[in-house]
Amino acid sequence: MTGAAERMRDRQMTDGMALNPAGPDLAEAMPPGVLREIEPRHLEEPRGRYHGHAGLLAAPHNVEEVAAVVRACAAARIGIVPLGGGTGLVGGQIMQDGPLPLLLSLERMHAVRDVYPQENVMIAEAGVTLQSARDAAKDSDRLFPLSLASQGSAQIGGVLSTNAGGVNALRYGTARALCLGIEAVLPDGSIMHDLKRLRKDNTGYDLRDLLIGAEGSLGIITAASLRLVPPPAANGVALIVVPDPAAALDLLSLAGRQLGDCVTAFELISGQGPRFQMEKMPDLRQPFDSAPDWMVLIEIGLPRGLEPDTALEALFEAAAEAGLALDGLIAQSGQQAADFWRLREEIPEANRLIGAISSHDISLPLSEVPGFIEDAGAMLADMGNMRINCFGHLGDGNLHYNVFPAKGRDRAEYDDIRKRIQASVHEMVVARGGSFSAEHGVGRLKVADLERWGDPARLQAMRAIKAALDPLGIMNPGAVLA
Amino acid sequence: MTGAAERMRDRQMTDGMALNPAGPDLAEAMPPGVLREIEPRHLEEPRGRYHGHAGLLAAPHNVEEVAAVVRACAAARIGIVPLGGGTGLVGGQIMQDGPLPLLLSLERMHAVRDVYPQENVMIAEAGVTLQSARDAAKDSDRLFPLSLASQGSAQIGGVLSTNAGGVNALRYGTARALCLGIEAVLPDGSIMHDLKRLRKDNTGYDLRDLLIGAEGSLGIITAASLRLVPPPAANGVALIVVPDPAAALDLLSLAGRQLGDCVTAFELISGQGPRFQMEKMPDLRQPFDSAPDWMVLIEIGLPRGLEPDTALEALFEAAAEAGLALDGLIAQSGQQAADFWRLREEIPEANRLIGAISSHDISLPLSEVPGFIEDAGAMLADMGNMRINCFGHLGDGNLHYNVFPAKGRDRAEYDDIRKRIQASVHEMVVARGGSFSAEHGVGRLKVADLERWGDPARLQAMRAIKAALDPLGIMNPGAVLA
Repeated sequence: MTGAAERMRDRQMTDGMALNPAGPDLAEAMPPGVLREIEPRHLEEPRGRYHGHAGLLAAPHNVEEVAAVVRACAAARIGIVPLGGGTGLVGGQIMQDGPLPLLLSLERMHAVRDVYPQENVMIAEAGVTLQSARDAAKDSDRLFPLSLASQGSAQIGGVLSTNAGGVNALRYGTARALCLGIEAVLPDGSIMHDLKRLRKDNTGYDLRDLLIGAEGSLGIITAASLRLVPPPAANGVALIVVPDPAAALDLLSLAGRQLGDCVTAFELISGQGPRFQMEKMPDLRQPFDSAPDWMVLIEIGLPRGLEPDTALEALFEAAAEAGLALDGLIAQSGQQAADFWRLREEIPEANRLIGAISSHDISLPLSEVPGFIEDAGAMLADMGNMRINCFGHLGDGNLHYNVFPAKGRDRAEYDDIRKRIQASVHEMVVARGGSFSAEHGVGRLKVADLERWGDPARLQAMRAIKAALDPLGIMNPGAVLA
Repeated sequence: MTGAAERMRDRQMTDGMALNPAGPDLAEAMPPGVLREIEPRHLEEPRGRYHGHAGLLAAPHNVEEVAAVVRACAAARIGIVPLGGGTGLVGGQIMQDGPLPLLLSLERMHAVRDVYPQENVMIAEAGVTLQSARDAAKDSDRLFPLSLASQGSAQIGGVLSTNAGGVNALRYGTARALCLGIEAVLPDGSIMHDLKRLRKDNTGYDLRDLLIGAEGSLGIITAASLRLVPPPAANGVALIVVPDPAAALDLLSLAGRQLGDCVTAFELISGQGPRFQMEKMPDLRQPFDSAPDWMVLIEIGLPRGLEPDTALEALFEAAAEAGLALDGLIAQSGQQAADFWRLREEIPEANRLIGAISSHDISLPLSEVPGFIEDAGAMLADMGNMRINCFGHLGDGNLHYNVFPAKGRDRAEYDDIRKRIQASVHEMVVARGGSFSAEHGVGRLKVADLERWGDPARLQAMRAIKAALDPLGIMNPGAVLA
């Protein structure tokens, strides 16, 4: 076992080696025209938790320039922080201490290179915004089904690097399921050309899915071959008031029996969200005068020959008969459907205006959801007077479980128990077979959580892979793995 | 760069170290009751191209025993060849030279541990056959949609390790898309517990998808959390005669516009298949007296409220009007649907009875398929008098492109050009952005192809990962990477 032991020691030595700060010497090694001025937006993130620092900002125009930048950083042992649209919520795009890194923004690689409608495939560069990708698909009468509230800013590279989820994952999967191939620059500056437009390709290890979700710590995704789908012939949206989360899950099963996989979105909305909106966003149209304790927003997409109204009415009637639905509204126009969705999409803004003590992006096995909501609520009630806004992508078992001060109190008053809340919620989630990061990723915020809750064998294999592909440790230092 | 360079040298030394043969010493280090007698079936594969050898056969009962076996082999530096149902077609499960390996069969781990109908999840051990997994799902009114001709023998562990595809990948994806989590033993004998029943879990690198498709060369999958779906309310099957492959693709687009993602299977059948069947399997019922040059078998699965007959008739009428359909049969009973499928599923048996010169499991971007079929046919016609049977999962761009002797001639007469045929077909496929192994994998048969056609940066990263996770090189030596 000598070889392995030596290698291990060698690896530890490498990992221990310090990186250098990005500065004028690195600037001279950059391809011409690649550097640009750092703006505040390159150092900020949506929740204001992290504020970054950087020595240089490179914004290459093509993959060869990305490779040259990476090679220069490798030669000088300088850390690289990749930037997409900056909408990430876990600090993956922000480095706030340590040797000044080079920021590598993909903003100048914003071409949709090709759309192949017959193949249901699109080739998009990393800097294309999700909205632009969706628009380009629509122009070819296709749907790129990934959809997030931040899609106007979020970029394909970031969306893939974080394996973003969003509201349509129930039907179409997360970003990973929508990617057929990638072009990427590996930590040694080599270019991996794997932009295949293939549904099946069993020729070796799945490096695509390894880089997807690696949050820039194993390489830079510069372009992707994306899976499109034929748009449903008709869509329908409804808000259904349910007695409790368990009933919401039974409603989901019922919808599956009636509509198969035509259920596109299934979002849980607790009454706390609309109540926050009524308090802080009084102009937002509320569909119900008094916020129901639990609602579900359901969207369906149907093939030709089926009418959304008919299908949703049949679902509602069966649900009401089974005691799963107390009230309901079926959107009667595109405007009304957009209003329903706006109610859902503005919950994070209402949350922001209230100011959370602690936010949790968790997932659970579906059958564990009701028990978790009950137990976590009881646990927090024991810890103090707080308000809970539990909402999100119930169809995926993905809840945004956010904890707020009691009315009239300030989040600062809870500073002493914040860490305990976070740890207790995560512990309860993990005990039920869930995940402490469903769709936001690890970034820098949850590195310690991963260390604590991650399976030891899996963590060890992750470290071995990181050391093998990025022996100098230059790729997004401090993200995912400490 | 000293650290990296030293590590590289060290790795090469390790890789160069020879493995030892499995023998009595290893037998003593095995957990009690794990070894069993080697039977011929453990050393054979379906096409008879490879015949294996082995020193021992271990068939552990649980994951802890698998871990103990792997640790013993690691300590003794003995190669491990994992065995599933033995249905693989590229020799991944057969080692025929080098130091005698230990065969590790998962046949005794054949429990469906749990089914969670509400979650659409099943936990199955690696030794569960695909048919048993499908049956267990059906017992809970769910569908496990992976379907292969060999599903009676193929086991979940092998199906995942090879990322099997089959006839329903068009709608439901390959094995990878149907797996939510795995339990696996890594090459150092550690157990990775990652049997999550979650749709979303962004907590670090995607080791699940790395082991899926690694053909046992990075570890042993011992159990999996599998994604189930609600079964469609109704299914329909039709055979549609098309003028040519380009028309078949237009028919696929038309079906997408009319039926969205309700198209479950879309199989291309060239006239050569039925003609081989008429010659060698005269009792097989043929739907057409004279085999059409090109047919498509289409299966659809619909939500409630739609009738398969109506949907298929509407599709056929629109196709006929557009010149895409010359004739067609809609199955009028379950028996007739099974007959249509049997026609498709018995093509490989007819091929076997004829005896192929060369078989190719390829995939292409959809829009490249017609041009490839035309050009490859012309190329082979230039090389000699041969018959081509081109069929398969057209919806996925996955063709089984098999080359046969002219009528009355023997395959041995083509021995001198076999290698040239293979290389030319693969070259043409790669030039059009396709894959030389769509669903069968690399195994031992296509190691040289991967070396020749694989992207260099991707190959280098694969080797680095193999060396990092399996520094002793004991996991399925000689498979995937030389």
